[in-house]
Formats: sequence, C-alpha cells, structure tokens
Amino acid sequence: MAHPDATTSTLTPAATTTVAIVGATGYAGQELVRLLARHPRARLTMATGSQATSTPRRLPALTRIWDGEVVPLDLAAVGRAAEVVFLALPEAASAETAPALLDAGARVIDLSGAFRLRDDAARAKWYPATKALPDGVVYGLTEFTAAAIPSARLVSCPGCYPTASLLALQPLAEAGLLAAGSDVIVDAKSGVSGAGKAPSERTHFCENHGSVAAYGLFGHRHTPEIAQALGRDVTFMPHLVPLDRGILSTMYARLVPGTSAAQVRDAIETAHARSPFVRLTGDTLPEIKHVAWSNFCDIGWRVDEASGRVILVSVIDNLIKGAAGQAVQNFNLLIGADERTGLL
Amino acid sequence: MAHPDATTSTLTPAATTTVAIVGATGYAGQELVRLLARHPRARLTMATGSQATSTPRRLPALTRIWDGEVVPLDLAAVGRAAEVVFLALPEAASAETAPALLDAGARVIDLSGAFRLRDDAARAKWYPATKALPDGVVYGLTEFTAAAIPSARLVSCPGCYPTASLLALQPLAEAGLLAAGSDVIVDAKSGVSGAGKAPSERTHFCENHGSVAAYGLFGHRHTPEIAQALGRDVTFMPHLVPLDRGILSTMYARLVPGTSAAQVRDAIETAHARSPFVRLTGDTLPEIKHVAWSNFCDIGWRVDEASGRVILVSVIDNLIKGAAGQAVQNFNLLIGADERTGLL
Amino acid sequence: MAHPDATTSTLTPAATTTVAIVGATGYAGQELVRLLARHPRARLTMATGSQATSTPRRLPALTRIWDGEVVPLDLAAVGRAAEVVFLALPEAASAETAPALLDAGARVIDLSGAFRLRDDAARAKWYPATKALPDGVVYGLTEFTAAAIPSARLVSCPGCYPTASLLALQPLAEAGLLAAGSDVIVDAKSGVSGAGKAPSERTHFCENHGSVAAYGLFGHRHTPEIAQALGRDVTFMPHLVPLDRGILSTMYARLVPGTSAAQVRDAIETAHARSPFVRLTGDTLPEIKHVAWSNFCDIGWRVDEASGRVILVSVIDNLIKGAAGQAVQNFNLLIGADERTGLL
Amino acid sequence: MAHPDATTSTLTPAATTTVAIVGATGYAGQELVRLLARHPRARLTMATGSQATSTPRRLPALTRIWDGEVVPLDLAAVGRAAEVVFLALPEAASAETAPALLDAGARVIDLSGAFRLRDDAARAKWYPATKALPDGVVYGLTEFTAAAIPSARLVSCPGCYPTASLLALQPLAEAGLLAAGSDVIVDAKSGVSGAGKAPSERTHFCENHGSVAAYGLFGHRHTPEIAQALGRDVTFMPHLVPLDRGILSTMYARLVPGTSAAQVRDAIETAHARSPFVRLTGDTLPEIKHVAWSNFCDIGWRVDEASGRVILVSVIDNLIKGAAGQAVQNFNLLIGADERTGLL
Repeated sequence: MAHPDATTSTLTPAATTTVAIVGATGYAGQELVRLLARHPRARLTMATGSQATSTPRRLPALTRIWDGEVVPLDLAAVGRAAEVVFLALPEAASAETAPALLDAGARVIDLSGAFRLRDDAARAKWYPATKALPDGVVYGLTEFTAAAIPSARLVSCPGCYPTASLLALQPLAEAGLLAAGSDVIVDAKSGVSGAGKAPSERTHFCENHGSVAAYGLFGHRHTPEIAQALGRDVTFMPHLVPLDRGILSTMYARLVPGTSAAQVRDAIETAHARSPFVRLTGDTLPEIKHVAWSNFCDIGWRVDEASGRVILVSVIDNLIKGAAGQAVQNFNLLIGADERTGLL
Repeated sequence: MAHPDATTSTLTPAATTTVAIVGATGYAGQELVRLLARHPRARLTMATGSQATSTPRRLPALTRIWDGEVVPLDLAAVGRAAEVVFLALPEAASAETAPALLDAGARVIDLSGAFRLRDDAARAKWYPATKALPDGVVYGLTEFTAAAIPSARLVSCPGCYPTASLLALQPLAEAGLLAAGSDVIVDAKSGVSGAGKAPSERTHFCENHGSVAAYGLFGHRHTPEIAQALGRDVTFMPHLVPLDRGILSTMYARLVPGTSAAQVRDAIETAHARSPFVRLTGDTLPEIKHVAWSNFCDIGWRVDEASGRVILVSVIDNLIKGAAGQAVQNFNLLIGADERTGLL
Repeated sequence: MAHPDATTSTLTPAATTTVAIVGATGYAGQELVRLLARHPRARLTMATGSQATSTPRRLPALTRIWDGEVVPLDLAAVGRAAEVVFLALPEAASAETAPALLDAGARVIDLSGAFRLRDDAARAKWYPATKALPDGVVYGLTEFTAAAIPSARLVSCPGCYPTASLLALQPLAEAGLLAAGSDVIVDAKSGVSGAGKAPSERTHFCENHGSVAAYGLFGHRHTPEIAQALGRDVTFMPHLVPLDRGILSTMYARLVPGTSAAQVRDAIETAHARSPFVRLTGDTLPEIKHVAWSNFCDIGWRVDEASGRVILVSVIDNLIKGAAGQAVQNFNLLIGADERTGLL
Repeated sequence: MAHPDATTSTLTPAATTTVAIVGATGYAGQELVRLLARHPRARLTMATGSQATSTPRRLPALTRIWDGEVVPLDLAAVGRAAEVVFLALPEAASAETAPALLDAGARVIDLSGAFRLRDDAARAKWYPATKALPDGVVYGLTEFTAAAIPSARLVSCPGCYPTASLLALQPLAEAGLLAAGSDVIVDAKSGVSGAGKAPSERTHFCENHGSVAAYGLFGHRHTPEIAQALGRDVTFMPHLVPLDRGILSTMYARLVPGTSAAQVRDAIETAHARSPFVRLTGDTLPEIKHVAWSNFCDIGWRVDEASGRVILVSVIDNLIKGAAGQAVQNFNLLIGADERTGLL
C-alpha cells in the first residue's frame, strides 16, 4: 500500500520533531493538542483554527498542559513551523490544504476522509473535493499498514467506524474465512462527539439524551472505506447513542463452511500478535467504558459452528484510537519511534 | 392462537373491572399502577409486592395518582380482590402464581416469559419453571393476536425486544417476502430499565454511563420467542445503552429475489392498517425519544432493490409498549373496550 | 394582583374553548401541543412557528396525538382562530405579539418573561422589549394567584426557576418566618431543555454530558422575579446538569430567631393545603425523577432549630410545571374549569 | 500540622519505591492502579481486594497497563511487599488496617475518612471505628500541607467534597476575609462514582439517569472535615447528579465589610501561587468537563462588592484530584519527588 517512490524517513530517530495542528479547536483537534503537548518526541510549535478567519482562542481544559494560543490558519506559517502537520479538518478543507503543505515540504497526517479511498470513482462520489491522490499517500490503519508508514508523505488516517470495524473483520477477510457472497453487516453505535463539534439539532443535548437514532442508512461514506479494505461489499449502519466518546461496532458474518471456532481465533490472534493497542477479549464481549480515554481497541467474538455464523464486537474511543491517538501512533512510526510513544 | 374452549368475555363492556397488580414495585409494575390508577374502565383494588414477605411501601412518584399501599403478596386475597390480575413478576414466580389465580377464577395478564413459548422443548429449556401451558393462553402481541384476546384466560404479553422487532418483521414474514434460508439479524439497543430494578454491577450507574455493552450473545431467551413468531431462525443480539427507557431495534434481512420497495411498503402498511399505536415513518428512521413515555411503536425501513436487502428500524418505550402499556392494551380487548382506552 | 377592571370570565364553563399556540416547535411549545390536543375543554385550532417565515412542519413525536401542521405565524389568523392564545416565544417576540392579540380580543397566556416584572425600572433592565404592562396582567403562579386568574386578560406564567423556588420559599416569606436582613440563597440545577432548543455550544451534547456548569452568576433575570415575589433580595445561582428535563432547587435561609420546625411545617402545609400539584415530602428530600413528565412540584425541607437554619429542596419538570403544564393549569382557571383538567 | 517526631523521609529520592494498593477493585482503587502502574518513581508490587476472602480477579480496563492479579488481602504480605501502602478501603477497614501496617514499618497513604478528624469527640461520632490517631498522621490536602508530608507516617487524604471546597474557601478563611458569624454554604454536586461501587438502589442507573437528588442533609461526615479546616461551622449539602465522575462545588459566603474584589483575588492567587494543579479561572466559571480525567482543580469566583457576598465555584474529578490523584500527589512529596510526577 506504501508508495514505492516515497522518500524514506530522514528524520533523525532520536531527535524531537516539530509538529503543528491545523483544526485544533474541534474535538479531535483538542485531543491532538493534549497528546502532542506531552509527547516526548514531538515539539508542538503551532496550533491553528480551521480557517484564516478563526478567532484566536485558548483551550481552557488544556491550561497548563498546553498554554499556547490557537491562532488563525496561515498555511505558509504552518509550513515553516513544523516538519509534520496534523490536519483535523473537514474533508473539503483537507483536500485543499494537504497538497499545499506537501509542496512546502511538510509531511502530513490527515484525519479527514479526503485521501482514504483509492478508487477514483468512489472518491469522486464520496469526496468530490479531492482532486487526486498525491504521491506517497498511505492509509494509516496502523495495525495493518505499519510497514508503509515510515516512507509516507501523507498518512490518511482511517475513519472512526472503519477503525473499530476493520481491526476485527479484516483478519477474517485476509484469512479467507468469510463466506463468498454472504452478507457482512456492521451495526455501529457511536457517541455524539462523532457527529462533530458544530452545534445543530442533531448534536443538541436534548435530542440525544434518552434516545438512540440510526442515520446514514445505505449512504454513509465510511461504507466504501470498509468495503475497500475488506475487498467486498458490506452493509454499514451507524447509530448515535447518548454518550460523549466511544464506538461499539457489532459485526455479523457467515464463515466459509466448515470453519471452526479455533480457526477464527487463530486468524484474529495472528493478525494482532504484535498490535500493542489491540486487546482480544475472546468470548467476553467488550464494553466502551474499558477503552474510553485510551488508544486501545478491544475485540471479542463468538462463533456458532453449527450455523457457520460469527459475531464480532469491537470498541474504541472514537476521539483517540478513532482519531487523534491513531494519528499519533502513525506519527510515531513516521519518525521511527516505538508506536506506543506518548500513548500509554 | 386463541384456545377454542376459552370462555368468551362475560365482563359487562360498560362496567368497571376490578384489577390487581402483583409485583407493583418493579419498573413495569409501577407503570402498571400509573396506567391503571387512571384507567376509566378499571378499578385498581390491590397492588402487591412480589413476595409474601415484601415490605409494605408506598410509591412516592405516584403520590396523588395512586395513594394506596403496596402490600405483601397474598394470593388468596388477590384472587378475591380482582377479576383481572396483572403479573409483573420474574418468570419463575409467574409460572407458579398464574395457575393458582386461574384456578381461583381470575383472568390473568402475565408480563413475564413463563407462558410465551408454545413448543414444549423450547419452553423447558428457556423457562424450566413453567410446568405446562394452561388452557386459554393467548400470546398478546396485540396488533397480530387481537381477535383471540377477548376469550383468553391468560394473556402472555410479549417480551420487550420481541415486541419492537416483530411489529416490524412479522409483516414481511407473513407476506412471504423474506428470502428462504437467509439470515435475519436483530441488533437491539435497550435502556437499562430493561435489565430490571435489582441492583447489580450490571445496573450500576457508573458501569453504563458513557458505555455500551453487548450481552446474551447466542443465548438470550427472546431469541426463540422471535423465531417462534417468524417461523424461522434469527440472530438476536441485545445491547445496553446508557438511557433509562426505550428500545431501538435494527433489523437486517434479505428479500425474496425481485421484491420491490413497494411490496415491502404494502406489506407493512397492510399489516398495520388498523394498529392505532404503530406509526410508520417510511424512510425517515425513527428515534427512541419520539416514543418515550408512550405506547407507540414507530417503524421505518429502507429497501435496496439492487441487492435485495431490507433494513428496518423500530422503537418503543420498553416499559410501556414493551410491558405495561401493551398489557393494558390487551386488558382493553379482554374487557371489550377500545384498545386505546387509558393509553393516550 | 388581578387588575380590578378586568372583564370577568365570559367563557361558558362547560363549553370547549378554542386555543392556539404560537411558538409550537420549541420544547415548551411541543408540550403545550401534547397537553392541549387531548384537553377535554380545549380545541386546538392552530399551532404556529415563532415567525412569519417559519417553515411549515409536523411534529413526529406527536403523530396521532396531534396531526396538524405547524404553520408560519400570522397574527391576524391566530386572533381569528382562538379565544385563548398561548405564547411560547422569546420574550422580545412576546412583548410585541401579546398586545396585538389582546387588541384583537384574545386572552393570552404568555410563557415568556416579558410581563413578569411589575416594577418599571426592573422590567426596563431585564426585559427592555416590553414597552408597558397591558391592563389585566396577572402573574400566574397558580398556587398563590388563583383568585385573580379568572379575570385576567393576560396571564404571565412564571419562569421555571421561580416556579420551583417560590412554591417552597414563598410560604415562609408570607408567614414572616425568614429572618430580616439574612441571606436567602437559591442554588438551582436545571436540565438542558431549560436552555432552549436553539443549537449552540452551550446546548451541544458533548459540552453537557459528564459535566455540570454554573452560569448567569449575579445576572440571571429570574433573580428579580424571585425577589419580587418574596419582597426581598435573593442570591440565585443556576446550574446546568446533564439531563433533559427537570429542575431541583436547593434553598438556604435563616429563620426568625425562635422559629420551630413545627412552625415551618405549618406554614408550608397551610399554604399548600389546596394545591393539587404540590406534594410535600417533609424531611424526605425529593428527586427530579419523581416529577419528570408530570405537573407536580415536590417539596421537602429540614430545619436545624439550634442554628435557626432551614434548607428546602423542590423539584419540578421544567417543561411541564415550569412551563406548559402551569400554563394549562392557568388556562383551566381562566375558563372556570378544575385546575387539574387535562393534567393528570 | 505535621507530627513533630515523625521520621523524616529516608527513601532515596532517585530510587524507585515499592508500593501496594489495598482495595484495588473499587473506583478509587482502580484509578490508583492506573496511576501507579506507570508512575516513574513507583513499582507496584501488589494490589489486593478489600478482604482476605476477596476473589482474585483481573481488571479488564487496565489490561496492558497493569496485567497483575488483584489478590485477596493478606496484611503481612502487603507489609513485606511495599514500602508505601495505599489504602482505598471503607473507613472502618482502614481504621483497623492502617495501624497494623504502620507497626510493620510501612508508610501509609489512606484515602478513607478514618484519620481525617483531629478532634476526638468529632472522630468518635463520625468515625467510631477509629480508636486513636497514630503518631505521624498528616492531613494531606497537598496544596496547604505540603511541608508536613515528607515526614508523615500516615497521610490521611481529604474527602472528595472537602478537597473541592477547601481549595477554594480556605484561602479566604486564612486571609481573614470571611465575615465572622455569617453563614458559609457549600452546595456540592457529585457524580455517582462518589457513592461507591457497591450496587444499591441509590447507585442504580435508572434511579440517577434524568434525575438529581440531595442527600445527607445536616448529616454528612464531610461537614466536620470542612469545618475543621476552616475553623468555623459550615452548611454542607451534597447532591448526586447523573454523571460518572466529577464534583462541582458552589460556595456562598459573606465577606468582612469593605472587602474588595481585588482582595479576594489576591488571597486566592497568593494561596495557589505554587499549586501546579490548581487553575484559577477568575470570573469565568469552571465546568466539570474541563477537569475530568485530570488531577486539576479549577476555581472561579465572583464578588458583589455592594452586598459583600462572594460566590466560588470549584470543580475536580472526584476519583483523581478527589481521591487517587491527590494520593499520588502526596506520595510524590513523601518520597521527595516533584508533586506532578506521574500525574500530567
């Protein structure tokens, strides 16, 4: 998946890397500030709003963790300030911003969807603002694309739903255990921070408290992203549940006839043998509260050998493993550091 | 489904019927008190705890709605006090209590699972305390069994999950639109009141706030109940979400090849043409907050004709339409009243 | 408090009164629709948005309870449609709308603050859009102003915080039990619906979930309203707590030296001897969940005779007893009906 | 406040100190595990349940952070395993356990109330299980007792409510700015984790969701603790609010006549000039969400010079700054480390 001609990392492994955050006042952006301000291998030199007209402001929850001011976006200044730039922007803004930063010589870690889809037609449909994939783009689902990241120019971090879902499903797909032609169903439940920080009726407290709502049926842009990684169609159905942060994804699939529970376990355990942030809970089903405020993904599953069905359940903190934490994990690989640096 | 020899209703339609509630301090029990205390056709003559040793107590939330005292359970007294007895008990207690009340001449509306399964083997597995189905048992999913209820001796009210799920799925099953041999998946999200009032780690506030948990995988006793009504296997997966009351059920199924979206709509609309508490929202997906504190079930759905898949979403208040409200709806039919009486 | 020259009620007691709701899509407005649609003495003939340019819409949660369309505001049409008009508008809009409706011959029940303050200077400060108090304005804290309401032309319903606080404090003030010159402190905790339906950072789900915030210190406009009723200064401090609907008000005061606990109890019990919606819980402190979705106000208190201090705690549903329910209670008196009509 | 004869710290400052946690499965205990497992100056050698009969178990949320097993309590083994022992026990258990550990030569950091009150009569009333204060007890409200902690044998950590309240009020009391004889009122709102992990009706999800409840009126044992530190009576009123972790304390007091807002600010700023975890927000009132999952205490206030009243609002995470974090902060001073170690 790595771009073959990408320059390999020339950052000195032991040095501190200068980093900047564009879009630092959103939920994912603030998590980035929190993580990078105390990252032993990064020096946060600039944090900006999402626009040139953003009002300068401080982040009260982060006082004494990072006391800088979030300044209006000035791309040239960002390019001068940092070797690595994190983009926590809406995808249209990322689509426009990232190429300019790459041209200026920065390496980019993008949290938006702008560069996730490799297929031109799919990308044109779901992310029309993205003109072309720049050279050196790597899809940064760290557990499966780690080898390509050190040489990436732009790491495109997965969506929160695909992160939770693929860490559980992809091992079965790659082991060839999912029955051909059968349905793969992803029923995901997300906290409201997944809907972003912009105030709307959808994010109003009273519309969510005491309620659950399904949305995006047959039309969420994370669907092609999951399908791309699995190499097959999926049915993906997101729901908003009344909590702040966290995703629980429940996945239903049919196994190739004759697949044993042991084979399923082997496939998952092998895929994650060296995944420091993936914790397998076996037939104990995971809960969001065990991963909230962490970069962990917990995965449990059960196999019904008689019917050939498997159900998997995975949980993440959508703002950390599903956004800022995964971005930092990718950053660690980019600079040649242990992927756990600053995340435990 | 009605027992052919059951005595038809001999209650004078215009009269007030005496009712009693056994198990009045649980969440469903208190809702029954609230609904029956102001029901224009019922006179609540007794409310008891679930045991002979229950401490007498009052219900502070219901002061001035019903100012009686919840007394210890005395079956003989209950039988004398009421023509119709509502049981809001654990299923083992219902299994023991209901036959005695029937013998004493009362008619019974049971909210537990004790009498829901018709198949002896299934019942022996899931509800081992139930010795046999009494004569005159009717499964009270009101919308589909209304005709049998007036002559029932015992109305066995459906579980909360089956109520939400069957009101959406059963019309498709009965219209023959579900593809043979395909999977039917029910992914349900329930508020914590569905786990009952007994304090436990599972119902502790801090274990649920900010979290979602799956439970009961491949082993919830509502699975055979849904399967019985649909006449086919289902995969049923319940989750606890951090809210008090409400269920949202998301259902995934494959249609018989060639089925159109219009056929799906017709099947659902026809089935519910005379369901005063079922509101069809079409391709607007329903939300729990629209039905909380009501006896409504809202159902939305979308059909993907290309792939032959249908997704349905239904919502109910688990304590009302999924328990006390549905019980009162059945009571209304039992006494020959309009099924909406006391429920709007 | 009633205007001496106000026309006494000429509505035939047994008849149905036509009513309209202006501002029917907000939280209080929707509660009004729910209550009035099934009110046995009212006929809801029109519900409008808050502006002439409001988009027509339906209320999905109220389908089959009230199936009308909320139409754009047309004051002349409202005046023709209804004998009594409920205004659930921002205060500036009420200040402008109410006089026009009065001129057109309607009687008005206003839920805003526009007409609550009698003192011209205070009103000019807190509600500058209100030009003058129309003739026939009655402050509608039903429990204490019931006698004046039948002859009111405009009932100005109290704010949610004053309702909760005054029902507990005013009996002590009127009995002369509060020590002169001592502090009266009102620390109130409100659900987020109290902040209104307009999306903002303040009402975003993630800003409230897992949080509590104080606001409005020394500057909330409910302060002069409470002070007006008590005839003394108060310190009022509102907080937002992470729930949808409900207020708990904790009040701290000093008693006249020598006051006994029995005197406090007598004062409260006497004041509410005929208050069907006030439930006194004595030294059992009330909880919001006991009054949610009801028109009740529960009040508990404790007296420390040694120190001469009293603490009172009251709870209401801010959208019902604190808004729509109280408005209907006032409507009932206005039309000569029992004040409980349509509210139990 | 430090015991004059206490042995001064003999722990080598740069070394790693062995620590054990007794009561590691409760909410505060698990936070201690999380903090100490990665503390650069501590080595966690043992974590036990609260009783000799506790079932061994692992902590799923902490997998890969601390993979040890929580073992049954064996006091002799604890004493051998660690130089410093953290007790996260009910106070009666602490009262019995701490002296034995001190006798065995360990130094103890106790999170319970057993050793907080210096007055024998008050302690006998509120903590009757505590027989006597051992030599070398220091009350560990770190910001105000830092000097005494290095030589402590037992650090008695403050309660969560006193921590939040005293960090705001004590500077005014010590500066002599609180009017003599006036009331000091502390109205505190706590998340449900403050009620502990034991399942009960009080901690059931459905009893708290959508509700607020006052409790402990005139009788909470944190009252004498706050009064002890302030040297005057206080009225303390705790409430449970529907969130997991966090306390917001609102405090009302009268100032000595003529006190200016600047004097109040000076007193608070001076007291906290070297408090790394206290963030002063001035007249911006703090919110729980800004301190959740941190060891910070944010304090805001407003002075009304005309009336001589001050209102202060402080927020903490009750499990961190109000329990485990403050205990680690004290541990840091005990071993001669920077008080921020392991807490940022």
